Amino acid sequence: VGPDLAGLLCGSEGTLAIVTRVWCRLTPKPKAFRTGLAVYNSSRDATNTVAGIIAAGITPAALEMLDGVFIKVVEEAFHLGFPTDAQAMLLIEVDGVDIPLEGGSSLDAEMQEIERIARANNARTFEASADEKKRDQLWLARRKAFGSLGRLNLSHCTQDSCVPRSKLPDVLEEIGRICRKYDLFVTNCFHAGDGNVHPALCFDEADPEQVRRIIAASGEIVAYCVSVGGSVTGEHGVGIEKMAYMKFMYSPEDLALMHSLRHSFSPEDRMNPYKILPREGVEIDLVHPCRNVSL
Amino acid sequence: VGPDLAGLLCGSEGTLAIVTRVWCRLTPKPKAFRTGLAVYNSSRDATNTVAGIIAAGITPAALEMLDGVFIKVVEEAFHLGFPTDAQAMLLIEVDGVDIPLEGGSSLDAEMQEIERIARANNARTFEASADEKKRDQLWLARRKAFGSLGRLNLSHCTQDSCVPRSKLPDVLEEIGRICRKYDLFVTNCFHAGDGNVHPALCFDEADPEQVRRIIAASGEIVAYCVSVGGSVTGEHGVGIEKMAYMKFMYSPEDLALMHSLRHSFSPEDRMNPYKILPREGVEIDLVHPCRNVSL
Repeated sequence: VGPDLAGLLCGSEGTLAIVTRVWCRLTPKPKAFRTGLAVYNSSRDATNTVAGIIAAGITPAALEMLDGVFIKVVEEAFHLGFPTDAQAMLLIEVDGVDIPLEGGSSLDAEMQEIERIARANNARTFEASADEKKRDQLWLARRKAFGSLGRLNLSHCTQDSCVPRSKLPDVLEEIGRICRKYDLFVTNCFHAGDGNVHPALCFDEADPEQVRRIIAASGEIVAYCVSVGGSVTGEHGVGIEKMAYMKFMYSPEDLALMHSLRHSFSPEDRMNPYKILPREGVEIDLVHPCRNVSL
Repeated sequence: VGPDLAGLLCGSEGTLAIVTRVWCRLTPKPKAFRTGLAVYNSSRDATNTVAGIIAAGITPAALEMLDGVFIKVVEEAFHLGFPTDAQAMLLIEVDGVDIPLEGGSSLDAEMQEIERIARANNARTFEASADEKKRDQLWLARRKAFGSLGRLNLSHCTQDSCVPRSKLPDVLEEIGRICRKYDLFVTNCFHAGDGNVHPALCFDEADPEQVRRIIAASGEIVAYCVSVGGSVTGEHGVGIEKMAYMKFMYSPEDLALMHSLRHSFSPEDRMNPYKILPREGVEIDLVHPCRNVSL
């Protein structure tokens, strides 16, 4: 009844109100699943597979991509037999109700269609399984992938943007180009099925010059993602870091409207005033974050 | 990215912005269905069935109730063999993927559970069918029910509120009580599965005194619905008619915030300024709506 204020609070990152009570709609756990693993000699073949699966009208429960570097660090950490010479791997899960069909079941049929698309995009191997233990191992590897990156003995800055899935091949290529330009080591492990890229830009955080390059490259990556129809952030929010990028996506009028909405909720400006929305005359120092404390 | 303005526009009834472009998420049509019809000698038994179905964790695709008056007018209009001596009827549909099970299928099993609940609540008959033609007839009757009410040669004012489904029996009883108090003829046909009541208050619109009674009864009905956890409107909106009821649901602070949000979008107050939100000093004349034109 009236404007949906709950909707408005989504994405406001504490700049409008404090949520003190939530009603949840629970959905039952899926009754069955199949987990597939496709291995590629090129990232572009893997991202083309993602676009192909979605274009075929299949919506996997999960569709995660790891590039060659991530395959190596995860394999070194967990010894699951991943091919360390591969350039990309897709972890694909379908779930739901498994309906018996002649010669198999509905989930089997869905996984077969996914395999057909993967092989048409040059997957060198494809395996699917309904084994719960194998599934748990694969997901453990995926969940701990960013942690495993610590084996390279570097800090990393994870970027975050959602792009149209059909643009994933171009976006990954551009991320590579930008990181070469700034002489940065980059590796990718991300929610490919959502078009949600997460390039991990590796660096030594003790070196302010490297930090500067990381920040410059991040800005160019996000600007490129937005230019192909993507977003400033996929799932991790704007916070302080991406405040300056908001102008990539929103006009000055859009931003003024959001400032005005914030003012309606908090006329005294007490709700995370220096988050999300850029302000005239306020410079954020991302190279030396502690210097922002006075804000 | 940032506050979800699309969420905020939902329910704003043109008071914030004009929507010029929409992206839709399409879902496939259900592959199979079962349509059930339960007949009762009492409204309370029918509404208890609704509460029972939802409490059992079943979410029918549709769960519609018609009271005795509606059964009669629909039967007179469409001759579908409805029992004109019954006091209530539930039209229940389940749909989705029909999974073969031993001795039937998943939709059959769901419909059997619904029948068990209906009979436990004194349904005098229960029929279920997968026949498409029969289904079309039943839905035609439901869709044209309010039109059929014209056979009674009266105008009607349809009220609209969503209430917790467990409160439906009490709410229907209270609607009857209020309408007796105001000497109004009322009949009910509504989306019971959503707890969305639609009492049709019948009257002669040429008689201002009857119009006054309709408006007074409507206010009491909505106030009662809100008092048991319901809403000022279910699906038809606030508009002008229910502006005065907004204070049943929202505090003065809530309403002031909504006014302020509106002002952010339209500082010059050009977006449906006299809709949804009550204003100090503005009286709406519902008995003679044309007198509001100067607003």
